[in-house]
Amino acid sequence: MAVQQHKFLLDESEMPTRWYNIIPDLPDPPPPPLHPATREPVGPDDLAPLFPAELITQEVSGERYIDIPEEVQEVYRLWRPSPLFRALRLERALGTPARIYYKYEGVSPAGSHKPNTAVPQAFYNARAGVRKLTTETGAGQWGTAPAFACALFGLECEVWQVGASYDSKPGRKTLIETFGGTIHRSPSRLTAAGRAFPEDHTGSLGIAISEAVEVAAGSDDTKYALGSVLNHVLLHQTVIGEEALAQLRLAGEDSVDLIVGCTGGGSNFGGLSFPFIREKLAGRMSPVIRAVEPASCPSLTRGEYRYDFGDTAGMTPLLKMHTLGHDFVPDPIHAGGLRYHGMAPLLSHIYELGLMEAIAIDQTECFAAAVQFARTEGIVPAPEPTHALAAAIREAVACKASGEEKVIVTALCGHGMLDLAAYDSYLRGDMVDSGLSDEALAAALADVPVVA
Amino acid sequence: MAVQQHKFLLDESEMPTRWYNIIPDLPDPPPPPLHPATREPVGPDDLAPLFPAELITQEVSGERYIDIPEEVQEVYRLWRPSPLFRALRLERALGTPARIYYKYEGVSPAGSHKPNTAVPQAFYNARAGVRKLTTETGAGQWGTAPAFACALFGLECEVWQVGASYDSKPGRKTLIETFGGTIHRSPSRLTAAGRAFPEDHTGSLGIAISEAVEVAAGSDDTKYALGSVLNHVLLHQTVIGEEALAQLRLAGEDSVDLIVGCTGGGSNFGGLSFPFIREKLAGRMSPVIRAVEPASCPSLTRGEYRYDFGDTAGMTPLLKMHTLGHDFVPDPIHAGGLRYHGMAPLLSHIYELGLMEAIAIDQTECFAAAVQFARTEGIVPAPEPTHALAAAIREAVACKASGEEKVIVTALCGHGMLDLAAYDSYLRGDMVDSGLSDEALAAALADVPVVA
Repeated sequence: MAVQQHKFLLDESEMPTRWYNIIPDLPDPPPPPLHPATREPVGPDDLAPLFPAELITQEVSGERYIDIPEEVQEVYRLWRPSPLFRALRLERALGTPARIYYKYEGVSPAGSHKPNTAVPQAFYNARAGVRKLTTETGAGQWGTAPAFACALFGLECEVWQVGASYDSKPGRKTLIETFGGTIHRSPSRLTAAGRAFPEDHTGSLGIAISEAVEVAAGSDDTKYALGSVLNHVLLHQTVIGEEALAQLRLAGEDSVDLIVGCTGGGSNFGGLSFPFIREKLAGRMSPVIRAVEPASCPSLTRGEYRYDFGDTAGMTPLLKMHTLGHDFVPDPIHAGGLRYHGMAPLLSHIYELGLMEAIAIDQTECFAAAVQFARTEGIVPAPEPTHALAAAIREAVACKASGEEKVIVTALCGHGMLDLAAYDSYLRGDMVDSGLSDEALAAALADVPVVA
Repeated sequence: MAVQQHKFLLDESEMPTRWYNIIPDLPDPPPPPLHPATREPVGPDDLAPLFPAELITQEVSGERYIDIPEEVQEVYRLWRPSPLFRALRLERALGTPARIYYKYEGVSPAGSHKPNTAVPQAFYNARAGVRKLTTETGAGQWGTAPAFACALFGLECEVWQVGASYDSKPGRKTLIETFGGTIHRSPSRLTAAGRAFPEDHTGSLGIAISEAVEVAAGSDDTKYALGSVLNHVLLHQTVIGEEALAQLRLAGEDSVDLIVGCTGGGSNFGGLSFPFIREKLAGRMSPVIRAVEPASCPSLTRGEYRYDFGDTAGMTPLLKMHTLGHDFVPDPIHAGGLRYHGMAPLLSHIYELGLMEAIAIDQTECFAAAVQFARTEGIVPAPEPTHALAAAIREAVACKASGEEKVIVTALCGHGMLDLAAYDSYLRGDMVDSGLSDEALAAALADVPVVA
């Protein structure tokens, strides 16, 4: 039996030194964010209460590549380059001729891809003299990342966690505190945005964002960190796709047939796919780019593409994006990181340009895929990337029928060690697929502001 | 600023293909296990009800190297070679001139070093036609490993978990079930050994071993897997030290001043240290070899070196080892994997030969070290290796005072993602150091059988 390689690793010296900005490569630029009062495009001054100047510059940059500061690279080297694995045992279990690769971000301190952006955000804020960062978190993957990054750069970190996740995942709270952060259940009593809801409300990312933004906007030495949605966040995540491209070359794969990733706010998906979309636009390969979202929170597949608020209280700029309505509160499914009413404006724009496609999958299919993956590949995925795995398995099974030797690349954006209650629910048969009714969707969209 | 490398990685092609057996390199062989009734050395026939022939051969082998079967290597490649990290940020935080390296086994499917032996054990059992493996687990690190390994080789896996850990760590139960294993709280009602204790007893490794052994001994197609203590288990773990030696050469370190690891049953410590003891015996380097155990379960530093049972019910052979007494029930400290009354006979023998030393550390010092480690290196350690980290930090701090640029190598044998309740206890100030009174120790030793 020939020895087949399972891992494709890069040396630290091969780590990307630049982030890739996809905007200048697109045929049209994405529509600008609008000021909620004036409905005019927001300028740097409007964002200055929340973000340091260097991140605002990155948010609107037209440069194709942006250098990663050495201080950030030094932290990245704690876990980057992250491994690319070939799912040899999963392929064998499926009996597929497809070759399945997964880029694994669970090796990071937070156990997910989130530190890729938390670290530069903490770095730029520290360099600007900021003392504290506030942020929100859903499942807790994101909140853990700035808690860690702030510890490295001497910043305080204050996190509002969506109530449903806070209650069901005490481990995330402890992990954030272990890294030195402070954590509150959202809706909290600490903000006007939180007090607008009953204290025992299950919460939502939109509400938690409102709370964190309110505290940052009200203090001179405090700024806000967002874990997804914005251009600079997706920019920082492109190290995932850049490394994957280099690792696929190591694996002898010159071309890829399918890039598939899960989408919540879009940062993991953008990070993986943007470098591949660049290759596609340049005619160097022609992969299908496929986003997978939960059937219960289907912003790309069932939301509307229009201006909406990024948060529930309407404190953020209006963003042109696929949205289910800013006061949409999704069912408390286990993939807390995908429970966001909107989608990154940049990803929404790319979807409208026809450069990618999207599907929605119910969670029980996702967990069935995850258990099969765990029993073959040995990694228990976070609930979010189970969506990508389910879609990768669908494709690999289709390849078995068609005989096609497709190359499938997916992002395993985090491990599920702090999400085992969801696996317990699945293994016991308690997990249900809640979906989203047309009536509930129409009601949620009714409050989206009408922008001419 | 010169770029300093944080990770030292080996290719899959550089993974060890042989396990190292230290016994032929020792000046004297370790005393043999004795049959509990005859007090004569046990032979292969005595062990056959519990272990397949190939593992019994390894247990008593005089060969210096034993080939790793390709089927086992193929599974190892899911996560091996594991990374060796240099703790650059921890060194900087301590202000030490020492160089601290840690070999990280938390990248495995079980999140610890345990699959290094679970995989070959499952493989040899499957090849011998065994249908089911039984085992015990303390904190759950070990039980997870055979659950995963059995899934790969088509075996059933049944695990008895120490009650205190079962109650406080529901995640471990789910993880074992996710990999396809079955888990019981020990003492259970399923065995005579379990029924000898009240159902709500906190349990111990000794009791759980008795339960798993009883079930295996009572069935023709069921055998037993042990996660530590025995020679073949320590043998399988030597991939850790062999890889670390190669990685230290990559890092430019020709010599090491201190090898420090935690000891429960001894498998992690043996796996790291044996290849370095070989180098020491051959005169190629002269590191101090230091074991660290919990002050509440100090078998090497306060136990007696004599024949005792490996389990509580007295079903195992008598093993010459450092023991606190086979019916010793340690305080339910958080490092469940170190709550074993004995120490591997091979390690005990090496300790008696003067080839290594041992210290005991209280758990609050260990967790203080772990939090400092997490906030600098980004990895939250399992409670067990916090003992090794605390000792490594003691040494690095001494180097700061002395100015010595020592090379310190430790094993970070697992991550703490399923042990966050212990961190919560520490961060809240609830954690106490229970120690072990002389009276309690004397009482526990009173029941150890007297062997001429």
